[in-house]
Amino acid sequence: MSAPLRIAVAGLGTVGGGVLALLAANGDAIAARCGRRISVVAVSARARGKDRGVDLSGVAWHDDPVAMAEQADCDVVVELVGGAEGVARRMVEAAIARGRAVVTANKALLAHSGAALARAAEARGVVLAYEASVAGGIPVIKTLREGLAGNQVRRVYGILNGTCNYILTQMRRTGRPFADVLADAQRLGYAEADPGFDIDGVDAAHKLAVLSAVAFGTETDIAGVHVEGIRHVGALDIGFAGELGYRIKLLGIARMTEHGLEQRVHPCMVPLETPIAHVEDVFNAVVVEGDFVGRVVSEGRGAGAGPTASAVVADLMDIARGRSPMTFGVPASRLVRAQAAPMDRHRGAYYIRLMVRDRPGVIADVTAALRDQSVSLESMLQRGRSPDEGVPVVLTTHETEEASMRRALARIQALDTVLEPPRLIRIEAP
Amino acid sequence: MSAPLRIAVAGLGTVGGGVLALLAANGDAIAARCGRRISVVAVSARARGKDRGVDLSGVAWHDDPVAMAEQADCDVVVELVGGAEGVARRMVEAAIARGRAVVTANKALLAHSGAALARAAEARGVVLAYEASVAGGIPVIKTLREGLAGNQVRRVYGILNGTCNYILTQMRRTGRPFADVLADAQRLGYAEADPGFDIDGVDAAHKLAVLSAVAFGTETDIAGVHVEGIRHVGALDIGFAGELGYRIKLLGIARMTEHGLEQRVHPCMVPLETPIAHVEDVFNAVVVEGDFVGRVVSEGRGAGAGPTASAVVADLMDIARGRSPMTFGVPASRLVRAQAAPMDRHRGAYYIRLMVRDRPGVIADVTAALRDQSVSLESMLQRGRSPDEGVPVVLTTHETEEASMRRALARIQALDTVLEPPRLIRIEAP
Repeated sequence: MSAPLRIAVAGLGTVGGGVLALLAANGDAIAARCGRRISVVAVSARARGKDRGVDLSGVAWHDDPVAMAEQADCDVVVELVGGAEGVARRMVEAAIARGRAVVTANKALLAHSGAALARAAEARGVVLAYEASVAGGIPVIKTLREGLAGNQVRRVYGILNGTCNYILTQMRRTGRPFADVLADAQRLGYAEADPGFDIDGVDAAHKLAVLSAVAFGTETDIAGVHVEGIRHVGALDIGFAGELGYRIKLLGIARMTEHGLEQRVHPCMVPLETPIAHVEDVFNAVVVEGDFVGRVVSEGRGAGAGPTASAVVADLMDIARGRSPMTFGVPASRLVRAQAAPMDRHRGAYYIRLMVRDRPGVIADVTAALRDQSVSLESMLQRGRSPDEGVPVVLTTHETEEASMRRALARIQALDTVLEPPRLIRIEAP
Repeated sequence: MSAPLRIAVAGLGTVGGGVLALLAANGDAIAARCGRRISVVAVSARARGKDRGVDLSGVAWHDDPVAMAEQADCDVVVELVGGAEGVARRMVEAAIARGRAVVTANKALLAHSGAALARAAEARGVVLAYEASVAGGIPVIKTLREGLAGNQVRRVYGILNGTCNYILTQMRRTGRPFADVLADAQRLGYAEADPGFDIDGVDAAHKLAVLSAVAFGTETDIAGVHVEGIRHVGALDIGFAGELGYRIKLLGIARMTEHGLEQRVHPCMVPLETPIAHVEDVFNAVVVEGDFVGRVVSEGRGAGAGPTASAVVADLMDIARGRSPMTFGVPASRLVRAQAAPMDRHRGAYYIRLMVRDRPGVIADVTAALRDQSVSLESMLQRGRSPDEGVPVVLTTHETEEASMRRALARIQALDTVLEPPRLIRIEAP
């Protein structure tokens, strides 16, 4: 058996604690599978005294994770601090500069600085591994970069945020509005006290930027991601989705188009007969469409101590086995700076929900606005009759360009019979 | 860029043709991702003259694949001939003996001789890769051996045969009996003229034996797999499954129990709320349950030129990138010869369907037989009333031991009010 792989771990919260627990529980099996042990030689965290349920005797303690990355006598630095800048970035840069491999779960860091870090790691000949940064325990980076590496990816998309999926699932099951379900989720610990990072789509956007880079060999481009969260998904829309044969999911979607790399995070209508429609609660799922393999769907837990530790340790085992994958699947010098496809050029089908005054001629005005932008209707339904109040009208369209859709909606919104801003949810074709 | 990886391909049918087409279509991207090209330098197939739609000029032709494995000037031999013995085995052994890496899609060969071949490959220091042997385009071997390598696997199971899944899906959708749907599937090319290999569970058993070895670090043991096919699944049972909240799927299931390694292939009732219940038509899916990651489900096409070629090429790219994985995830010398858990010791819940004479006292006799074996009923339903003909009675049980269930069924079958042998379908807990 070879010498142990020596690791220094920064951040001993949920994920860091999970990594130490996993290495303790399955250490012998891991050694058999790698031909060497993985030994924690140093750690760094905020509170030194805290009982984490793992034996840290004989492990060097560092108050400063950046100093640990520079000074610890280790082969790999594991960064579980988080954040796009600050300590996390400085310690990763320090580790690479010292010729140490890096394993991280930090999607924000990669989304913002992935290409630069990949170039630095490649120049220094060290591994920068980040399986845990996307979709928790699902080995989606390995699947894209190795398992499906012979394919040209046509589209990659997924349910990348467990909090949003939990909220949307609960809204559907209970019929209750977004704000109520969010409050419950916060009480249960499924949503943060400050939930914006999750529910506004920021977290999913970070993960999508990482997936795109691996799928298309491009520089990570978080600025190129069009982001909408789930705050405006109404209980009404969830109900209509069911009637129309859809589920509403927050998806991150990337594909290469004639206008450039399209990256978007927003609520989608997905047909009930697709696998992703049945991914519920806090589960994540990623769909890869390759030119030869067709559609491969992977589903699992996207967060939590165990699943995330599983991904971190898989990266460590790859390094222990002597593997040096290229960060985003091609040499860092060959990463392409893709042009971001403007959202106006997006083509797809749409669900539109209006609240209108129940008067003769309303539908004629609405459909005229669509016709004048060459938007073709696929279905229309109106529920209820109420001459004095608003009634909902739902329209679905055939594939059209987003710019046309937006122009038609602006005209519809200006009608005095239309009582609220129209709600738009894109329909994602299977 | 390094020197090309030179490959010799035996078998130019659907899969072999797909591999050549993929390498031709995506050769430049593959070279960028591996740092070297993958070059086909030799091929062997039955009919030399046949037009396969790919340019074979400059490629050495061998009538004898074994001779090619020995003599071709190559780094890797790709075996796409098939079969547990004969040419396939001889050429793989010849390639290993010559120090050449082997990539194969041959589940029968691995299920029967996996451990011996792994030892030979390890002794010679060559790679034996077989991603394409299980679940086609889904990178399940890589997922188990690398992506989830930090986990102890609790259970691995899946829909491993597309033909059976297609037939069961069609039976459910149309309500038609097995024989009719099979005949249709044969006409459409989804089932072979001689369908036994698929519908009797043999193909799924081969794949399960390979999965078990990777999941548990055991020698492949095809003899230890309990195998039942789908011939006896009735249209009635498919209907009752729906009523009870299940779908019927042919699953291959492996788990380590106190009685040894349990490997079984048989029709199962799977709850509608599980992802695998929604895997339909020819799609395959594999579920891995790990102690830290929880449940990871992967779904994709399990057969066909494109998906299988995707898996073969992924193996080739791993080799081109200089990776030498251990065949079944641990050194071949450490593979354990697991004791096969006897099926009598299996514990689970059961669906039982009887055809009984509609007389008073029948149910009392049936339930007494179950009680005397300590089998606890979970539900019972009887459909229709017909004093002169048989009526179906469906029972589901709580978890019990298979031996008890079998004894109770023997007594039930002997009742003169029971008109047909009872049908038993195991309920697989999520």
